[in-house]
This record gives sequence, structure tokens and C-alpha cells, in this order.
Amino acid sequence: MAMVGNCCAIRGTFFDFVDDPWKYEGREHEAARFTRDGLLVVKDGLVVDFGDFAEVSPRHPGLSITHIKNRLILPGFIDGHIHFPQVRVLGAYGSQLLDWLQNWIFPEELKYRDRDYAREAAKHFFDALLAGGTTTCQAFTTSSPVSTEEFFDEATRREMRVISGLTGIDRFAPDDFCITPDDFHSESERLIERYHRKGRNLYAITPRFAVGCTSEMMDRCRQLKLKYPDCWVNTHISENPSEIRTAREHFPDCADYTHVHEKHGLLGPKFTAGHAVWLSNDEFRRFSKAGASVCFCPLSNLFLGSGLFRLGRATDPEHPVRVSLGCDMGGGNAFSIIRVLEEAYKVGMCNNTMLDGSINPREQDLAEAERNKLGPYRAFYLATLGGARALYLDELLGNFDKGKEADFVVLDWNAGQTAMRWHQSLITHNESPENIDQAAQLLFGVMSVGDDRNIDETWIAGTRAYKKAGV
Amino acid sequence: MAMVGNCCAIRGTFFDFVDDPWKYEGREHEAARFTRDGLLVVKDGLVVDFGDFAEVSPRHPGLSITHIKNRLILPGFIDGHIHFPQVRVLGAYGSQLLDWLQNWIFPEELKYRDRDYAREAAKHFFDALLAGGTTTCQAFTTSSPVSTEEFFDEATRREMRVISGLTGIDRFAPDDFCITPDDFHSESERLIERYHRKGRNLYAITPRFAVGCTSEMMDRCRQLKLKYPDCWVNTHISENPSEIRTAREHFPDCADYTHVHEKHGLLGPKFTAGHAVWLSNDEFRRFSKAGASVCFCPLSNLFLGSGLFRLGRATDPEHPVRVSLGCDMGGGNAFSIIRVLEEAYKVGMCNNTMLDGSINPREQDLAEAERNKLGPYRAFYLATLGGARALYLDELLGNFDKGKEADFVVLDWNAGQTAMRWHQSLITHNESPENIDQAAQLLFGVMSVGDDRNIDETWIAGTRAYKKAGV
Repeated sequence: MAMVGNCCAIRGTFFDFVDDPWKYEGREHEAARFTRDGLLVVKDGLVVDFGDFAEVSPRHPGLSITHIKNRLILPGFIDGHIHFPQVRVLGAYGSQLLDWLQNWIFPEELKYRDRDYAREAAKHFFDALLAGGTTTCQAFTTSSPVSTEEFFDEATRREMRVISGLTGIDRFAPDDFCITPDDFHSESERLIERYHRKGRNLYAITPRFAVGCTSEMMDRCRQLKLKYPDCWVNTHISENPSEIRTAREHFPDCADYTHVHEKHGLLGPKFTAGHAVWLSNDEFRRFSKAGASVCFCPLSNLFLGSGLFRLGRATDPEHPVRVSLGCDMGGGNAFSIIRVLEEAYKVGMCNNTMLDGSINPREQDLAEAERNKLGPYRAFYLATLGGARALYLDELLGNFDKGKEADFVVLDWNAGQTAMRWHQSLITHNESPENIDQAAQLLFGVMSVGDDRNIDETWIAGTRAYKKAGV
Repeated sequence: MAMVGNCCAIRGTFFDFVDDPWKYEGREHEAARFTRDGLLVVKDGLVVDFGDFAEVSPRHPGLSITHIKNRLILPGFIDGHIHFPQVRVLGAYGSQLLDWLQNWIFPEELKYRDRDYAREAAKHFFDALLAGGTTTCQAFTTSSPVSTEEFFDEATRREMRVISGLTGIDRFAPDDFCITPDDFHSESERLIERYHRKGRNLYAITPRFAVGCTSEMMDRCRQLKLKYPDCWVNTHISENPSEIRTAREHFPDCADYTHVHEKHGLLGPKFTAGHAVWLSNDEFRRFSKAGASVCFCPLSNLFLGSGLFRLGRATDPEHPVRVSLGCDMGGGNAFSIIRVLEEAYKVGMCNNTMLDGSINPREQDLAEAERNKLGPYRAFYLATLGGARALYLDELLGNFDKGKEADFVVLDWNAGQTAMRWHQSLITHNESPENIDQAAQLLFGVMSVGDDRNIDETWIAGTRAYKKAGV
């Protein structure tokens, strides 16, 4: 990295997590860490010291310090499910998943065989990510290696920690969009050798989704995972009822959608399935046991009308499933993880009107309803350390512990729509937060009333990579 | 008005409606009007001429013309359901409706007995409305006349067309928040005499909701409507299942929630009930027959988890119900009607995953599903002329017809999140729209990817009342 040997220090108010707030019901703040006047010391892109300014600063005499005032500094947001080649068609008018793919998505993604187009798109894509405060993503590309190469090359230039891979599909797409299992296998191998663990790039073996993958394609994914067990696996699951029915028809020997991935040896650590809206309780339990993760994409699940993800079911303490958040742009209509949190909160609230039993007493489940409630601790945990744990990245990043990679966002809690500032003034009278509870309340204001405007700065590996334009 | 005798003219690209797009399935553009190079001539706050620049301008020699380029000019947005005294607590963390009212809303609304507080709040409120492009709203106040007075006084200073009224509640609230039916009646009369039809103010007799109103309070509303038949009536209905159950308990002689309003002589023209999420098909038919209107508040319905409004049912051509849109701030977490359109689209999509029969074949209703689809014509119709028709304001405003009040918004289709500009460039290659289809596609981009940032200017009665801060 270009940062080698570089040292910097940031003074400010920090908010991060040390554990999962779902383990601390009613006292979620115990999972979080609030450092009112903190100092973060970064060397070669890694945190080398962190804590109260008064304690940490004497250990680093002569260090040049950047003092960031009236802001909350959080670990960079992690997006577990996003489609690089859909940046231009986010928010496209349409039908549900399967028609929307045919009408809007495949035609646009075809353009990414062109290297110039893919390169321009990659700039737009990463600019938009950083403006939303996302510092790490797990991304789909297309079935053309060109798009995967341009994705990793642009990520490399920006020194960002990313997970991605050639995205295999050999049916349910235009002929020239499909890739044969043989070509997918050989190209994936070539790309793994070229990119995996090079710089901050990580490779995910990526079967697009079971509706688009034959058994032969899924077998090639299994072979790749056996040969490269250090690689990630990224796919979709149970997004839409019609998709599920089609998948069941394509894999008649599988009892359910999850079984397709079990049968092909993919369900396990470092496996992520996006959406998981319609997973049965039994499938959630098998995900839990396997150490596999799901990615909750509420912007997309509402925009495509896919349905309501059951967060309270996924976080069942007896069978906890690893959960990350994804914007799923372009099915999701924004890049902003703050907007993802807003919609995730709403999905939980909608689920809870069923779970309180007021519509159907048999659906009452108050414990699950409690776990659906996305207060600020749970929300920003999912956006940072929780996402890192789900993606098996928590040894690398997710909070400000020593040794972690120094990606972070600088939040302006007063930015956004006109009503925001007076709203937030209820909490701290326009002062900085004095304690963790005030900070959390401001963060809830950001997620419920805010958007990407609340991202004032985004830092990658100790270097500022984005600064919001002044108003 | 201060504008008396004043004349101005705006040249630009205009987009408005002349009819209801639901009547033109598959050719919705026939309900809209696109004036690529248009001229709007305003005198004393009213449209005195409108049409193609080449035709209109020779009729007004010597007129000073403001030329607005690279923008779409639409009639001002109409919000049919919003709570003035919740401006500071929008997006408050909480439970469903009934608990959320007790925990957050009533304590905040109590502050509006204080005139200084209410006056400051009114400034924040109208600033936020204009920044979202809303030029007319129908608003709840509190049970204190002070809040109603400050609301109308601020609206008067801004020359805005508004509907509002003292908001009656005599149970299900803190004692000092309740108002007796007698006091409500006499104060309403006083306020009607003082404000109704004074300037642009219109008065709505406003029983808050049946859970909060005794039969005696509802009777007083009936008496007021009989004495002042020109007044509007504004309330809530069928927002949340627990609320509905409670209302049924409070009015055991009423067969359903709508019956409460029928029994008290309120259901009819100029009557608006917010939410209507859980109305039965039969209730929708009775609304249709009565000429009463519902207000669709998707931001709030998702934020409080109330449920999915059935727009396709309300727009049944055999029993069409008048529908306006509302942000329902503070149950809704934004002031922006553009954000309301985004969420309204999502609610339709979620409903359609049930109506396509893929979950339960008995729920299949493809005609209703078609009507749920909120393309740009239907969406911006609801935000402008449709809202005006629902609120019985369409003789006064809602499009650019001669004689209408000249409230309008100037949309920048490229503003918003970082990804917006490249997204929109798919349609017009960064040029202005050449035809109605391109304009509509840009507008869909605004509603699906945009927010209040797309409001570049808001004009009230021919005068610019808001201009977005430059970046």
C-alpha cells in the first residue's frame, strides 16, 4: 500500500462496538464503546493505538494530530450485498425480481464486457460507496471477467477492503450473458490467482443464484471452494416467492432452497446468501449450525416488493445466524447504509404488527418481536462489527481495536433534511454528546431522519478518501 | 395578499396533469401535459395565462420573464396529512401507534400551549415543508388553540394555502392534553370565524381519532359541520390493528370504524381520513359513494409498522376513492413528498407480491395489482392534481390551468445521492427532456433515487419562497 510507513492520528469522539448488542437485551450499550475525547493512532493503515486522548497521547509524543470536532467517528460501514454493474440502473421501474432482471438488469450488465464502460462505472460505483460511508463491500460483478477485473483494479487504486468475484450464470439470462460452467471455472481460477489476498482484495466464488445456475455450475463452485478453501462464497437465496418456486423446480431433488447449497458443499463459514426473506425456521437453524451468513437488504426487499426479512428470527439466541446488511443496489434504490438502517427498522416494525398477535393471535411471538426492534446499538452494530463478523472479516476490521484496519466514517448528526437540526437539538441542545446514551440517540436520529448527507468524511486505511462538498 | 397587482412570468419546461392517469391504463401520459418551452403568466398570485412560449408570449408584450433552465416545473406538492406539532420529534424511536403516541407525541405536543414555542416550531415546520416542495398541507395541530393560531398565522405570513383546525381529543391522552367537548366546540367556532376563508386559510373540524374521541366529542364535530358546512373535516382511520380494536370497543354500536364517522354525519365531501390501511372493501365502497377521501401515508405506515395501504383497491374504477398523499410527519420520518412517493411505490410492490398469487393463489388479483403500480404519471398526479381533487381544492390549485393559484416547484432531476446524475444520464444523456416520456422517466428517477435535494426552488403564489442552498 501507498501508506507504508505513514503514521497519522485522529482526535475526536468515537463510537464503536466490542460485542453483539442482541446479547445484552435492555442494556445494549454494554456492547458498545463510547470514547468522548479519543485518539486513534494509525500506522501503515492499521490501528496501532486507541483510547482516551489523555491516556493515549503521551505514548506518542510529537505525533501530528487531526482534531475532528462536533462529529461522531464510527468504523466504516460494511455492505454485504451489492451489485457493481447495476450502479447506473439503481431504482429502475419494474416488476418483481425475475421480470426486473430480464427487463433492466441483464441488458445493462451486458455493457460491462466493454472495458472502458466498466472502468467508468467502477469510478461511479466507488465514489457513491464512499459518499455513503461504506468502506468495505461484498459485490457481485457480471459473467464477464472484464467487470471483475475492473472492479478489483479500482478497489486496489482506492486501497479498499473488498470481496468480489466473477458472477456465474448459465441459464435464465440472454445467451450472450450466460457463461459455460467450464469457462466460469477456468476464469474464476485465473481471477483467484490474480486477485485473492492481493492488497486488500478478497475473492468470492459467486454463483449468481440457483435459478440462474445449473447443477453443473453449482458443482464447479464446489470444486473451486475445495481447491481454494480460503475463498469466500457469495450468492442469493429465497428473495421472492416466484424465484423460490422456480429454484425448487430446477433442483427437484432438494427439499428446499438451502439444500441446494448444502448439496453442493457451499453452506459454511464465509458463505453469504443475500436476502433470505422467505427462509423457513428450519433453514435459519441450518445456516446457524453451518456458520453461514445471510445479508439483510431492506431497501431492495421493499423496492422489488420481495417481502419482510425476519431479523428477530435470524437473531434467535438458540440458533443465531450471522447477519450483515446490504443495500443491494440496484435492487436497492440507494447506496447509503444509513438508508438501509432506516428501511431495516421499518421492516422490523411491520413484522412486529404481525408478531404482536393483534391480527392473528397464532402469530404472536413477543420475544421474536423484541429482537426485530432495531435501536441504534443493534443498527450500527450490524453496519460495522456485526457485518464484519458475518463476513468473517472481524479479525481485520469492524471496530477500533489495535491491529484493525483503519477505515472509518465521520458523521455529522445535524446534516440532512431541513428538519434534522431542530430534531437533534432535543437530545444535546446542539452540543456534542456527553455520554453513550446521547450519542446513541443522535445515531438513531441519523438513521431515522438522515441519509448520505450525514456522512461528512470517509477514511480508508488512515487516509481521507471522501469529504462532503460544503454547502 | 402582498402580491396584489403584481405580475410575473416564468419560462421553462412544465409538467402537470389534466386528468387522472388511472383512467388511462397503459397510456397514462394522456392524463399529463408536457410543455417543453412554456410560459406561465401570474398576476396577483393566480395563473392568468399558460402554454407554449411561442404562443403565450406575444399576448404579454413587455412582461419581465424569469427563465428557468434545465429544470422541470411542476405544480406544488400537496400533503393531505401532517402533524404540525410533531416537527421536532419526527422519526422517534418507538413502538406501534398507541404506545408511540403516549411516549413521544403527547409530551411534545403539550409544549405547544406555549406561544413562543409554537411560533418557533411553525417557522421550522413551514421551512421544512417548502424545502420538500410542499406548498399546501392539511395539518393537525394540538388541543390547545395556541398551536392552531400560530399555525394559521405563520401560514398567513407565507401566503400558503393550508387546511387545519383545532385538534380534539378527550380521552386516551394525559389529562392536561385533553379538551372537553364544550371547550372544543366553542374554541373551534371562534377559530373558524377568525381563520376560515381568511386569506388562503381553510378550516378543518378535526376530531383526532376515534380512540381519542368520545361520542360526545364526535357529536360536537357533527354540530360544527352542520353549522359550518363549508368547513373541511380531518381525522384518522384504521391505521393499526390494535387501534381498530380499541375503536370498536369504544363505539360498540358501530359495525366498523367507518361507521363511527357515518353515524356522526361526517363522512362526505371534504372529509379526509388519514391512513385507511386496514379498511375493508366494503368501507372503501362507502367512502367512494360518500365522496370522502383517504390519505395514503406510506412513510408513516412503514415507520410505525402499521401496514400496507391498498392503493389498487382504493382506485377500483367501479368504486374509486379520492386519495391524497401525506408524509404524516412525525409518524412519517421525512417531510419530502418525493420520499413519500418512493415509499408508496414500495408499498405497492409489497402488496403485489401477495396479489400475484405466488404465496396464496386465493389472493391473486392482477387488476388490483396493476392499479398498485406507481409509475411516474400516477405518482406525481397524486402529489399534485390528485391530491387537490381528494381535498376538494382542485378548483383552486393542482395544475397550471388559468385561474389556479400559482404554487409550483422547480425540480433538478440530477440532484441527490452521488449516483443520481449518471443514473439519469441513461435517459437524456444529460440534456433536458425532449418529450413527455423522457420527462416522466426522469421523474421516476427522482422518486426512486431522489429526495428533498431534488427540490431546487419552491414558489408560492408566483413568488419564490425557497431556493436550495448552493453546493
